[in-house]
Amino acid sequence: MDLPINIDLIQDAAHRLDGLAVKTPLLESWQINDALGMRCLFKAECLQRTGSFKFRGAYTKLSRFAEDARKNGVVAYSSGNHAQGVAAAAGLLGAKATIIMPSDAPEIKIDNTRGYGAQIVLYERNSEDRAEIAHRLVEESGSVLVPPFDDIDVISGQGTIGLEIAQQTAQMGIEVDAIFCPVGGGGLLSGLALGLAATLPDAKIWCGEPQGYDDVIRSIVSDKREMADVIVRTICDSIVTPQPGIITVEIIRRLVAGGFAVSDREVKDAMIQLFERMKLVVEPGGSVGFAAATQQRAQFAGKTIVVVLSGGNVDRDLFGRILLQSD
Amino acid sequence: MDLPINIDLIQDAAHRLDGLAVKTPLLESWQINDALGMRCLFKAECLQRTGSFKFRGAYTKLSRFAEDARKNGVVAYSSGNHAQGVAAAAGLLGAKATIIMPSDAPEIKIDNTRGYGAQIVLYERNSEDRAEIAHRLVEESGSVLVPPFDDIDVISGQGTIGLEIAQQTAQMGIEVDAIFCPVGGGGLLSGLALGLAATLPDAKIWCGEPQGYDDVIRSIVSDKREMADVIVRTICDSIVTPQPGIITVEIIRRLVAGGFAVSDREVKDAMIQLFERMKLVVEPGGSVGFAAATQQRAQFAGKTIVVVLSGGNVDRDLFGRILLQSD
Repeated sequence: MDLPINIDLIQDAAHRLDGLAVKTPLLESWQINDALGMRCLFKAECLQRTGSFKFRGAYTKLSRFAEDARKNGVVAYSSGNHAQGVAAAAGLLGAKATIIMPSDAPEIKIDNTRGYGAQIVLYERNSEDRAEIAHRLVEESGSVLVPPFDDIDVISGQGTIGLEIAQQTAQMGIEVDAIFCPVGGGGLLSGLALGLAATLPDAKIWCGEPQGYDDVIRSIVSDKREMADVIVRTICDSIVTPQPGIITVEIIRRLVAGGFAVSDREVKDAMIQLFERMKLVVEPGGSVGFAAATQQRAQFAGKTIVVVLSGGNVDRDLFGRILLQSD
Repeated sequence: MDLPINIDLIQDAAHRLDGLAVKTPLLESWQINDALGMRCLFKAECLQRTGSFKFRGAYTKLSRFAEDARKNGVVAYSSGNHAQGVAAAAGLLGAKATIIMPSDAPEIKIDNTRGYGAQIVLYERNSEDRAEIAHRLVEESGSVLVPPFDDIDVISGQGTIGLEIAQQTAQMGIEVDAIFCPVGGGGLLSGLALGLAATLPDAKIWCGEPQGYDDVIRSIVSDKREMADVIVRTICDSIVTPQPGIITVEIIRRLVAGGFAVSDREVKDAMIQLFERMKLVVEPGGSVGFAAATQQRAQFAGKTIVVVLSGGNVDRDLFGRILLQSD
C-alpha cells in the first residue's frame, strides 16, 4: 500500500500554521550531553501554543474544513492536550467547540480548554463511552468531529514538527543519527516519521511508550494492531491510548525502527533532568522520548539525537510532588 | 559624562558569543496576554547556557583577556549564576577557574559550578568578606578577577540581550512600548539599556527589584548610590546585591525610566504563571521583571512589552514547595 500522506500535505499544513503555531526551538544542554555520552537536541514542543503539539494537527484539520462545515461547531473527545488544541484552533477560526473530557483529567487541562472558549462535557472514564457521546452530539447538532490522531489532516499537521527539525538541524549544520518521540495513538509519531522520511531519510526514528501501554512497540514487531493492558497504572496521562490508529500504525510500521517501554520512575527522572538542566516544564507523557533515550544511552553512545518533548501540561501539584520526590 | 560603553563594544561581544551563547527565544502566551490586558513577550534567558544570562558577560570578559593573562587562572565571587557563567566560560577557553561562593547558595548552583570544572571555595556570608578572599587569591596565584557586574566588558556582554530583542521584535514586526528587567547589581540592566538605546530608542525600560532591596529604584530617583536594607529576607537569592555598581548606576540613571519593588508573594505568583502558561522554569530573581509588569498591569494596559526572564537556576525543593504553595 502507498503511504496515505505525501510531503505536499505536510507542507500545506506548515503553510497554514505559519505565524499561528510557534516554531519551537531546538535546545541542548552540554551537561546532559556529557552525562549521557551523546549529543541530545530537544525539540521543545512544550513551548507550543496550548502547551503541546496537538494545536498543529487540530488547526490543520479545522482550517481544511470548508467554512460552512464548521458553522455548526466542532466536537472532540480528549483527556486534555487534543482538547486544548481543538479549542484554541476553533477560537482562531471563529467556530464553536464542544469538548468531551474525562472527569479525572488534569485540572489545568480542563481549565485551559474552557479558557479557550470551549464548552466542556465531562464523562466517567470507567462507565461511559466517549466516542458514543461524541457521535450523539454530532448527530444532534450537525457539528463535525475532530479525531484525535487517526486522521490524515491531523497527522499532516503534526508532521510539520518533522519539517522544522530538518530545517533547524540543517541551519545548525548538524547530522542527526536518531530521533526519539513519545507515542500514544500515533498521530505525532506517524506525522513526524512522514515529515522526516522526505527530509532526513537517514535518521532512524524510535519511540518511547509507558510500560504496560507498549501497544505501539508490540504492533511494530507483530503484524497486528496490538492492545495495551489498560489495567496498568501510569502517570503518563496524555498517552494512555489503548491501541494505535488504523492509519497511524501502518505508517509507523513502515517508517519507525522500534521503541522502548519506560517505567514511571524513569519518566519522573527524565522530568527532573529536564527541569534542572533545560529549565523546561515537560509533562509525564511528553518526557517518555527522553526517558527512552536515557534508558538506551549505551546503545546510542556517541550519536547525535533529537528528542521530541511533546507537551508541558502537567498539574502543578503533580509536578511539585515529583520535584520533592514525594510522588 | 559620556556613557562608558558604545554599541560597537556590544556588537563585538555578540560576535564573540556567536555559536556559543544561545540566541534565546522570544515567547508569548495568549492566555497571559488576555489575563494582563497587554501583549507580553518573554525573552527566555533561563534557556541560556548555564541557565542564566551571566554566561554572556563572563565569556565576553574572559575572551577579551590576552591569553597569557588567563594562564594563571581566573577568580570570581558569586552566589551562583555568575559563578556558573565564569566556570563555563573558563572551561571553553581552557582557563582554570576558582569560584568563591556563600555556603548557603542554592545546591544546584554549587553543584553545577563544580560540574563545569571550577574549584569552589565556600565562605560564610555573615562573617567573611568575599571580596577580601578573592583579592587574596588573586595576589597569591597571579590569577585575574572577573567582576560580577561593575565592569565594561561584562556589561557589554549582557548588552547582547538588547541587540537580540531588537532583532527578534523587528523580525516579528512588533513595536515595543516597554521592557521589564530584573536588577541586582545592574550589569544586565545597564547592558540591556545600552543595547536598546542604539536599537529601540523609543522603548522605555523599567526594572523590578525585591522589596527591601530596592537600592537601584531609589538610586534612579536620588542622585546617590543608595544602599539596600540588607536585613530584609527575600527568596530572590540571585539579586540580593546591596548596592548598584559605580558604572552601572550611571548608565541606569541615564537610560532606565524607573522601577517597581515586588514582594516574595508577587514573585512566587509570577513563577507559578510562568510554569503554568509558559512551561518555563524561572528562578525567583529571574521572575521579578514579570512580577513588576503584573503589578503594574493597569498602567501598561494595551501596551506591548518585553519581559526579560534572566535565569532558571532554582533548587527543585524550593520550586516544588512554591508549586505546592507550602512555601
